[in-house]
Amino acid sequence: MIKRRKTSVVKVDSVRIGSPRPIVIQSMTKVATTDVARCIKQAGRLASAGAGLVRIAVATKADSRAFAKIVEKSPVPLIADIHFSAARAIEAIEAGAAKIRLNPGNIKKRADILRIIASAKACGTAVRIGVNEASIRDLKKADVPAGRRVGLMLREMTKYVRLFAKAGFSNIVLSAKSADVVRTIEINRRIAEKFSYPIHLGLTHAGLPEDAKAASAVAIGALLAEGIGDTIRVSVAGDPMQEVLIAKEILQSLGLYKLNEPELIVCPTCGRCQVDVVKLARQVKRVLKDVKKPVRVAVMGCIVNGPGEAVDADVAVCAAKGKGVIYRHGRKRTTVPENKLIKALVNELEKC
Amino acid sequence: MIKRRKTSVVKVDSVRIGSPRPIVIQSMTKVATTDVARCIKQAGRLASAGAGLVRIAVATKADSRAFAKIVEKSPVPLIADIHFSAARAIEAIEAGAAKIRLNPGNIKKRADILRIIASAKACGTAVRIGVNEASIRDLKKADVPAGRRVGLMLREMTKYVRLFAKAGFSNIVLSAKSADVVRTIEINRRIAEKFSYPIHLGLTHAGLPEDAKAASAVAIGALLAEGIGDTIRVSVAGDPMQEVLIAKEILQSLGLYKLNEPELIVCPTCGRCQVDVVKLARQVKRVLKDVKKPVRVAVMGCIVNGPGEAVDADVAVCAAKGKGVIYRHGRKRTTVPENKLIKALVNELEKC
Repeated sequence: MIKRRKTSVVKVDSVRIGSPRPIVIQSMTKVATTDVARCIKQAGRLASAGAGLVRIAVATKADSRAFAKIVEKSPVPLIADIHFSAARAIEAIEAGAAKIRLNPGNIKKRADILRIIASAKACGTAVRIGVNEASIRDLKKADVPAGRRVGLMLREMTKYVRLFAKAGFSNIVLSAKSADVVRTIEINRRIAEKFSYPIHLGLTHAGLPEDAKAASAVAIGALLAEGIGDTIRVSVAGDPMQEVLIAKEILQSLGLYKLNEPELIVCPTCGRCQVDVVKLARQVKRVLKDVKKPVRVAVMGCIVNGPGEAVDADVAVCAAKGKGVIYRHGRKRTTVPENKLIKALVNELEKC
Repeated sequence: MIKRRKTSVVKVDSVRIGSPRPIVIQSMTKVATTDVARCIKQAGRLASAGAGLVRIAVATKADSRAFAKIVEKSPVPLIADIHFSAARAIEAIEAGAAKIRLNPGNIKKRADILRIIASAKACGTAVRIGVNEASIRDLKKADVPAGRRVGLMLREMTKYVRLFAKAGFSNIVLSAKSADVVRTIEINRRIAEKFSYPIHLGLTHAGLPEDAKAASAVAIGALLAEGIGDTIRVSVAGDPMQEVLIAKEILQSLGLYKLNEPELIVCPTCGRCQVDVVKLARQVKRVLKDVKKPVRVAVMGCIVNGPGEAVDADVAVCAAKGKGVIYRHGRKRTTVPENKLIKALVNELEKC
């Protein structure tokens, strides 16, 4: 139901970024790039969890050599994360990076950029132009007011995009990241308005897992809800698997990712509630772990929304004192005593 | 920086709902309404945590009697949650509810609604017109396509609003809730376009705490980012304190809520990282627990964004192998060995 913004489609090895192609989840390896075996293993885990692309930092000459080995064995197309060094960019491209990420704040020389573009063109490599608010020279002053920051980021992006266009290179994805949610939303709206390249969304340095989820969901979710965003990366300090799982949650909430597993909705309960809905929901959740179907299951504790909500769920349990009613596709199927609810639910799930 | 939609301002006892007044956090008590002492205690806890209004289900005659007693001792203005019964609505208003919530799907008779309006007018009580997708009769059929559901919800809302307008009652807040994030966003955009009354945002039945956060942040956050929403309630199956904490996180991420406590941003780390940033961040987080200032603290693990990010933070630590640099308001203050980082950070925090 979300109408995505029209974009060009960028080829990243076997993956495509841009509407109407599915939104691609990305993450990054967090072990030393020179540790080839662990990098390959981590990239594999991220890919199995749902990452369509995995990014790896390539900062030193030794990283470049390691990256070349990782590319050979990676089960998923890789992106080289480049800062400061044109040499690293070209080494990564020649090593077989599916895409490289350049930060305009860190590679500024026109001649360097043109050399990178020539190399990417020759090898069919995609490029992300990844503006970071924190890397823009003019923004490294504490006294730049918040209101001007978005304008300066857009100016930086525009200069870079023009240079790529002039060099006849269009296989690009754009991103502009900030640690501030409001500025992240605003700069991406402006980029979406001005350019038709696909957009990579992310909130920089969101924080520890427990702190990062809400802010990332707001920033990335708000933009996706406006149709903006073709690939996303959730930043979390810690295990990158968390990044993929949160990214999936955000996309799934907007119907942009179909998990082959159940979705559980639960009524929040209130003073009307006469049963322990949370306990029942936990029991249902345990049962659902073994179900590999994209079904929506509702656990409700009262008559206000129960029967109505049941319509929107594939299977619903409306619990009352000592008993419960089971619905399938909005139709009442059976009323059973409390201790038989789970069995009856499983029975209906099997028919879905 | 978010430009809020212009609305009327609704008086709810000492609280005001509507722009430019601060967005009000709501939650609900989840103990039996007849348990007066526990209700008062829970309402008090929710208020201390940041809820500006607390809602209580009033479903039975006994609930009405209990509600009257709770109102007398509540430290926070109370909203009575009404479904089905006009008698309960009037009893709650007469008992001193600051606001009542009516569900048009459940009180349909024109004469009943007019009686409630007359009573609310006489007592200066505010009313929320709270449409629930699951309570609309026409939507209780499984075969209503998703695309039509938003239109039917808006029609239900419009009918009700017109009736209130005709009766000369304008102290109303509007809400339309669904368990579906995309429909929640869409119906609220439509309501915001059509009416100028304040809007209450929420996602119905989001789920267990670990499942509810991302979806609620996406739905509520996306609307807030578009300037829509004057009061919010996060639904979580479980302790309502969770609802208030998540609501605060969502608002804070958009700069719509000023906590008098630190915000911690942490770099997600990558293959460039040579220090245990997560461990350092956890240490910093422990120290910050005792700090009661609205400061932004950044913990960074590399040179790419560290110094730039430091500009946007009140205090920042950029950790490198065996040592770290401390910044305050973007200015490098000191370089200290790893084991003195926390002490140096605390020292700078004191000067903020």
